[in-house]
Amino acid sequence: MPKFEEKTIATKKIFQGHIINVQVDDVVLPNGKVGKRELVKHPGAVAIIAITSDDKIVLVEQFRKPLERTIIEIPAGKMEAGELPLHTAKRELEEETGYGAEHWEHVQTFSTSPGFADEIIHIYVAQNLYEVSNRAVMDEDEFVELIEVSLQDAQQLMTNEQIYDAKTVFAIQWCLLHKLTKK
Amino acid sequence: MPKFEEKTIATKKIFQGHIINVQVDDVVLPNGKVGKRELVKHPGAVAIIAITSDDKIVLVEQFRKPLERTIIEIPAGKMEAGELPLHTAKRELEEETGYGAEHWEHVQTFSTSPGFADEIIHIYVAQNLYEVSNRAVMDEDEFVELIEVSLQDAQQLMTNEQIYDAKTVFAIQWCLLHKLTKK
Repeated sequence: MPKFEEKTIATKKIFQGHIINVQVDDVVLPNGKVGKRELVKHPGAVAIIAITSDDKIVLVEQFRKPLERTIIEIPAGKMEAGELPLHTAKRELEEETGYGAEHWEHVQTFSTSPGFADEIIHIYVAQNLYEVSNRAVMDEDEFVELIEVSLQDAQQLMTNEQIYDAKTVFAIQWCLLHKLTKK
Repeated sequence: MPKFEEKTIATKKIFQGHIINVQVDDVVLPNGKVGKRELVKHPGAVAIIAITSDDKIVLVEQFRKPLERTIIEIPAGKMEAGELPLHTAKRELEEETGYGAEHWEHVQTFSTSPGFADEIIHIYVAQNLYEVSNRAVMDEDEFVELIEVSLQDAQQLMTNEQIYDAKTVFAIQWCLLHKLTKK
């Protein structure tokens, strides 16, 4: 039994959406008392650190309704039912940027908000990029603009908080570490 | 007007919880069509990279219901209404670890899940730690165990996916970068 496990004794479904489901679980806490946990269910996502032949990072600028602002992120997207993360990564990179990649490598998987959501995100690095001739199309409610920047410029975007989300901050740090430890 | 802005024309409240609220907004998309956005509202959080005098990182192990597993994280917590992030950080460090700190510095703020949630997390580094004599108590539904590890051991925990969440992965990378660039 995992340490401090909270055993579910009841589940109340609150909302079934297209992106998320919401439920409230009654759980038995480690001290024997009963508590409530508000849970957001998400299918999981992937994100791609795509590096061009001239060492630029491929980014997309998009409006994020929850934040009510436009931010700059690495390409990313939700996994579809039954889809393997690497397949999602290849599909999303093509849809959002028009790039394919010859070299793919898994970098890290992490939970974004372990306090209330089960979303995990798989991060890949994609290298040896090429332009896809008949690119797949994005979801009809997605609007993004492609940007390619140097690592130095990406750091500046992070300082300015135009890069402002967990996966992209991770990506910039990963690129910096990779460069520093390669020397 | 922000690029690709999505103007809200209706908001449907779905759920009012203790931690999160959920709503669905109808928005006018940049192409003039109407779309739906499922939004999780969260009060925001802080997390603390606390470094001991012998260069260990202070971590807490806890069961995370959304993931149905125990993970190892940097100390963190939700902001209360009207609370300043630095105040939350000081309170949470004391509650979860019994430590106070003489030196505090803001490191980074980022959104955890910009696709569906407005949660942002403010990361601080805390140094010159001391033990608080009459420590504040945790919420009654919180159960955590304190661990102090070297940076090398923290990296191993990240490789093993025992460290598995965005803020803690950020923290380990930040410590590594800080060390590499200080040399």
